[in-house]
Amino acid sequence: MDNNLQIPQRILMGPGPSNVHPRVLEAMSRPMIGHLDPVFLEIMDENMKLLRHIFGTKNRLTLPISATGSAGMEATLCNLIEPDDDILICVNGVFGMRMSDIVDRCGGKLHTVEAPWGRIIDPQSVADKLKDVKPKLIAIVHAETSTGILQPLTEIAELAKAHDTLLVVDCVTSLCGTAVNLDELGIDAAYSGTQKCMSCPPGLSPVSFSDRAINTIHNRRTKVPSWYLDMGMISQYWGDDRAYHHTAPISMNYALNESLKIVCEEGLEARYNRHSLHSQALAEGLSTLGIERIAQEGFRTPMLTSVSVPNDVDEATVRSQLLHNYNIEIGGGLGAFKGKAWRIGLMGETCRKENVISLLTALGEILPKKSTNEAIQTAESVYNTN
Amino acid sequence: MDNNLQIPQRILMGPGPSNVHPRVLEAMSRPMIGHLDPVFLEIMDENMKLLRHIFGTKNRLTLPISATGSAGMEATLCNLIEPDDDILICVNGVFGMRMSDIVDRCGGKLHTVEAPWGRIIDPQSVADKLKDVKPKLIAIVHAETSTGILQPLTEIAELAKAHDTLLVVDCVTSLCGTAVNLDELGIDAAYSGTQKCMSCPPGLSPVSFSDRAINTIHNRRTKVPSWYLDMGMISQYWGDDRAYHHTAPISMNYALNESLKIVCEEGLEARYNRHSLHSQALAEGLSTLGIERIAQEGFRTPMLTSVSVPNDVDEATVRSQLLHNYNIEIGGGLGAFKGKAWRIGLMGETCRKENVISLLTALGEILPKKSTNEAIQTAESVYNTN
Repeated sequence: MDNNLQIPQRILMGPGPSNVHPRVLEAMSRPMIGHLDPVFLEIMDENMKLLRHIFGTKNRLTLPISATGSAGMEATLCNLIEPDDDILICVNGVFGMRMSDIVDRCGGKLHTVEAPWGRIIDPQSVADKLKDVKPKLIAIVHAETSTGILQPLTEIAELAKAHDTLLVVDCVTSLCGTAVNLDELGIDAAYSGTQKCMSCPPGLSPVSFSDRAINTIHNRRTKVPSWYLDMGMISQYWGDDRAYHHTAPISMNYALNESLKIVCEEGLEARYNRHSLHSQALAEGLSTLGIERIAQEGFRTPMLTSVSVPNDVDEATVRSQLLHNYNIEIGGGLGAFKGKAWRIGLMGETCRKENVISLLTALGEILPKKSTNEAIQTAESVYNTN
Repeated sequence: MDNNLQIPQRILMGPGPSNVHPRVLEAMSRPMIGHLDPVFLEIMDENMKLLRHIFGTKNRLTLPISATGSAGMEATLCNLIEPDDDILICVNGVFGMRMSDIVDRCGGKLHTVEAPWGRIIDPQSVADKLKDVKPKLIAIVHAETSTGILQPLTEIAELAKAHDTLLVVDCVTSLCGTAVNLDELGIDAAYSGTQKCMSCPPGLSPVSFSDRAINTIHNRRTKVPSWYLDMGMISQYWGDDRAYHHTAPISMNYALNESLKIVCEEGLEARYNRHSLHSQALAEGLSTLGIERIAQEGFRTPMLTSVSVPNDVDEATVRSQLLHNYNIEIGGGLGAFKGKAWRIGLMGETCRKENVISLLTALGEILPKKSTNEAIQTAESVYNTN
């Protein structure tokens, strides 16, 4: 390749990363400073404050883990789980499976409540399971990026409370795209990723732990299995001690700071509404092209639309045409949906009318016997009535 | 703080991060693309190739872990260690202690060979230990950032070979600043950080595993304790399968690519010589100011000069004056050296004559009864005779 990186300008409509605002890209290129520089400590404090706002929490232990979203999943689980703890994981897609794998690696006794791919976890099935098992912790995914399901959390949070069980929620894809109110729901620990609805580059994983979760960590009989993700040590660096643990990713924290400021300037409600509006326009336009949603009706994520691939096309070829001829990235299916589904993201900066129209135009041109005009008119009618 | 991040231009002469080249900062601000985009896959392949070059290895499993240097330490150890394995760690500073902690968390049986802070690990003490213990793995730090010791590796590599034991080397601070030849020495696994002599922002940890190390991982009886750092799964993403594991930190990989190209343009030998020259000039200039090195003579790292704090000054006050009045960051002591030592880095982009002169000038002005001119003349004489 060239000596100079030639990076194309893509429209990132996959499951993440999403497009990044020029202000955030500019923040990434600010000069390097030390991880104990007073200016950096000020940025750390501000990032914690802004993260508390978007998580809807007062939790003091709210900070970005120095790795991508999956490390936040591992940090959350491996700090709270000890060998032989009974752990209940809700599984209806890739990320519930990943949590189960981590429970196993932590030595926890894994119990699961399952639902078919593309369906929510029925709170009643959790209630039934809790008759047999008294788990230390229940974990569930809020927005399943592999299926496009948005999980209702209220009833499950009430069950966790009634059974005095910690509740962990995966907010990787939901945070900043739909309401996540940790304190209101009584969620004990949550994690996210920067590259979805925050529209920051991938590289950090915001996490938040309630005081109850912190107490659970303090009262561990055994060391946290991961040194790098040990929240006790990490919190000493992010707290008043400023004790050296690892060298924080400085530039990524600049970017997180800028992206969170952009989120606050827009306002959370306005941002949620924007995700809702454009996903509706996209879905109705796609329907006109004969492309239908596969996630359970009434429980679809606004930031990721999962659809069935039409029978008469090869899904990978269409994705390749979109990428190479239109600079549009969409995602393929994972796991049970491999080869059968597309996953179309409208996250953060990507979630704009022009991108909805561009994708509908491109698909109308690529797919046999389809009309671009009709699809765009359908999308426009959603915009005109909202 | 301001809406716009006001980041000062520091001269980063601490233990890392080091100053970052404008080309690398510019690379960080390139547009976002997907983690399976063909352009990104090309960058991944090139980063692996360039990392093999700087590590001096043909190891196919050579890639950047998606987290900072300490995660590379954990990745290397937790993939190779299983519960009850006998593990021998060489400890003469903070990072040997950190490795010991990780061995414990992995369930390994920890054995140590120790040396006082600021002294090398005597190969004879390793040989003696190997009469009593048959470890699966010996781990040692090449350049101890907490003490400024550069550890000779040849004899210990021979011992590891003779005892059919895996050898793991911490190259966080040494890589790109002094010769690291994994294949020549027969090192089985090594890890580094991007923010030292590579002069890339912190956020990635290059690692390399020999085929023997890979076989050890393949033959594990138990799962790797960390999902995020499981080299088996990570290698499927970086290998031909391109199987999704986690979303790679895209921008950090742009930056790594650019910084490795800058390293190659300079050439490794020239880069090592540059680190050697400037650290000599710095040390002699400091000596003129009454500031003497504390690491064992003959075994001092060229990229980090550890010195005793003069008796008549408060070490933290001087560091604060350097930062606030001269925009120069130097490091304080850690562990046994806390309050007693300064750690002065000359890594990568920071390793330049103008920075040596700036620090000597500033210290000459800050310290009582010292002459800046004399210190600069001493440094100049090193430059004039080299």
